Amino acid sequence: MSRPRAVVVATGSELVRGERSDLNGPFLARETLSHGLEPARITIVGDAPAELEAVLREGLEADALLVSGGLGPTHDDRTVELVAQAAGVGLFVDAELEGRIEAVSRAAAERLNRPYADFAPGVTKQATRPEGSVVIGLAGTAPGLVLRAPSGCVVVVLPGPPSELQRLWPGALESDPMRELLARTHAPGRRALRLFGVSESAVARALDDAGGDGDGVEATICARDFEIHVDLVVEQGAEARADALEAELSSRLDRWIYGRDERPIEEHVLQLLRARGWTLATAESCTGGLVAARVTSVPGSSDAFLGGVVSYGNEVKTRELGVPEELLAAHGAVSAEVAEAMAKGARERLGTDVAVSVTGVAGPGGGTPEKPVGLVYVHAEGPEGGRGRELSFPGDRASIRARSVAMALHLVRRVLTRSLDEDV
Amino acid sequence: MSRPRAVVVATGSELVRGERSDLNGPFLARETLSHGLEPARITIVGDAPAELEAVLREGLEADALLVSGGLGPTHDDRTVELVAQAAGVGLFVDAELEGRIEAVSRAAAERLNRPYADFAPGVTKQATRPEGSVVIGLAGTAPGLVLRAPSGCVVVVLPGPPSELQRLWPGALESDPMRELLARTHAPGRRALRLFGVSESAVARALDDAGGDGDGVEATICARDFEIHVDLVVEQGAEARADALEAELSSRLDRWIYGRDERPIEEHVLQLLRARGWTLATAESCTGGLVAARVTSVPGSSDAFLGGVVSYGNEVKTRELGVPEELLAAHGAVSAEVAEAMAKGARERLGTDVAVSVTGVAGPGGGTPEKPVGLVYVHAEGPEGGRGRELSFPGDRASIRARSVAMALHLVRRVLTRSLDEDV
Repeated sequence: MSRPRAVVVATGSELVRGERSDLNGPFLARETLSHGLEPARITIVGDAPAELEAVLREGLEADALLVSGGLGPTHDDRTVELVAQAAGVGLFVDAELEGRIEAVSRAAAERLNRPYADFAPGVTKQATRPEGSVVIGLAGTAPGLVLRAPSGCVVVVLPGPPSELQRLWPGALESDPMRELLARTHAPGRRALRLFGVSESAVARALDDAGGDGDGVEATICARDFEIHVDLVVEQGAEARADALEAELSSRLDRWIYGRDERPIEEHVLQLLRARGWTLATAESCTGGLVAARVTSVPGSSDAFLGGVVSYGNEVKTRELGVPEELLAAHGAVSAEVAEAMAKGARERLGTDVAVSVTGVAGPGGGTPEKPVGLVYVHAEGPEGGRGRELSFPGDRASIRARSVAMALHLVRRVLTRSLDEDV
Repeated sequence: MSRPRAVVVATGSELVRGERSDLNGPFLARETLSHGLEPARITIVGDAPAELEAVLREGLEADALLVSGGLGPTHDDRTVELVAQAAGVGLFVDAELEGRIEAVSRAAAERLNRPYADFAPGVTKQATRPEGSVVIGLAGTAPGLVLRAPSGCVVVVLPGPPSELQRLWPGALESDPMRELLARTHAPGRRALRLFGVSESAVARALDDAGGDGDGVEATICARDFEIHVDLVVEQGAEARADALEAELSSRLDRWIYGRDERPIEEHVLQLLRARGWTLATAESCTGGLVAARVTSVPGSSDAFLGGVVSYGNEVKTRELGVPEELLAAHGAVSAEVAEAMAKGARERLGTDVAVSVTGVAGPGGGTPEKPVGLVYVHAEGPEGGRGRELSFPGDRASIRARSVAMALHLVRRVLTRSLDEDV
């Protein structure tokens, strides 16, 4: 493993206190990996100067140090000053940069109806940067910077808001210090297998039986809401080994593979619907709209998804989905019969080709000995008939709901891809 | 700031590669803070032994080191071995623990129909623990451990799956080494203010005008989907200062405060509905079910939330919500008129006291010069009339949807708490 080492440092007191989740570390880790660097660690740290400087010093031992946050106009925002100090380089006020930041600040002062004098000290502070650094763009009044430290480490300083960081990141990749670093690497190849309905340990065993990883191919197996995500990172020269491993895994696990790229199941479902010219509707009880929300998270989903009903109350199941009151009385709202009636009702009422329904006990209350928390019924109905599943999920409310959503989407895929006679 | 320093280390190659977000770091950071420790850093690292050991050595300089992950039965799971090595203590096989793990493994072998011999080496590996450590429980076959290192640092070793980690954490708090550490601290008090409709910079100015933080009160201001979250961490003895600061902030920001605890807006909405004995329905277009999903994320929401319609296609708006075709033709689906008709239709069709609707252009496609991406209409209708809002959101599809959801929930709150004559 001779990939250059990359370290990510995310600063923010709300991050280190766990009040907000850091999104920049995972983004930058994925980016460094895809460009042939090895993401070695992600450190989240607050704005206490001694702590932040110590973390930056450790990071400077890597080949690349990517820092997010702490670029604001106030004295608490110390990233640039501490990067310079840790790297052992001086600071200077960049007059041209100061002019650009002043223009942004004057516009903000006018918009907020405040005197520009309030902003002036912050402008000079934000225009102060390490000797030898390159400016890669502005996020509001905060400049993104790239610096080759005397140690050789390429330091990239980026703003904290994830959308701003992601906007400036391509500029960092195109900077001279980063280009020179990336010229030493080969971006590894990636292979993805996405499976549903098989256990993580069965996939791990299939990987072992297929010869395991190594020899330039690294495999990770990750379980999420019944899906198993297998990712192979392939060094240059190991493509044949990766082909062989992928083929072995495919032949052993074929029946459970639903994808060979990183697209989520909702995109597969939409693609399958479009291929047939079919439309989809949802009827949700315990998932409360999450299935529809997942499908509509995909841009352009409106060409195949018409809508849905969140039938939380029984009166809504009856009135909006046509579930007979007698059925509800005989079997209860959480039953295979009601799930089927909900899907059929949604299909008919919304006039779609396919509909999927979910009804269950998400907890923590509402469970009974006959219908305990975690009992969920899912049903998908298409033009050629339907398929139902009874499930018994462990976990808390959020995880029962998330698993129910995954099951519903995969059951739609099942109805769209397989003959109803098949027993899977 | 004399709080004992806590460092969190989360291990996992899928975490350091950004393939999965770490949930354990934020959880443990919040926990340490609430028990009077100072969360100094959270480091995410893979399973490369040299990297992991270096991170553990740095962590051992703190007063508490909390480690998650790497406790599995295979040779890649090196956390226990490397903790012992970094701390300079020996390892031993705990025969009693080995018996407990063997029992779990034999049951698993039987369930999976595999020979127990496959499991035996893993059992011995997982029963191997540092001299002087305390076992705080088992997660599957992985023991959670607490160790006082020779350096004085209290090391807690926990399993990687968040639910298992959270289940074993109370045992760590009750262990002797941790009790002795916590006896040196005072859990700080916490105050929370939750605001909506005011800018982050206005809240920061109000905090400055109120005298700022310091003197035993630390303030963080955090913006999220138009909400501003202000949190005060209050050292023992600084309660009067915190009272004064909170009162000052309240008088300056009163009009925008919706909460004084950490409950999300959907819980406030449900509480307000229950107080009036009213029910709620949703009618969603661009948010695709997310408003209903947020409301139903709250256990017991079924007593006030009856259901909703996801009216993605125009035919669903007409058929299920009674939005007149002429209205859609005259104003378009994304209009104040259609938003109002959707809310009124949902209220009538689902028979609730209040209904809220969202229609907009979430993008990235579908925008026009007249109706650009980010244009969203929200409408809440109650027994005494309704309120609508036209919004123009920046950002990508996910953030436009998230902000629309927040706006919808806060507009329901608005209808539930204020006279319709008030101009806010």
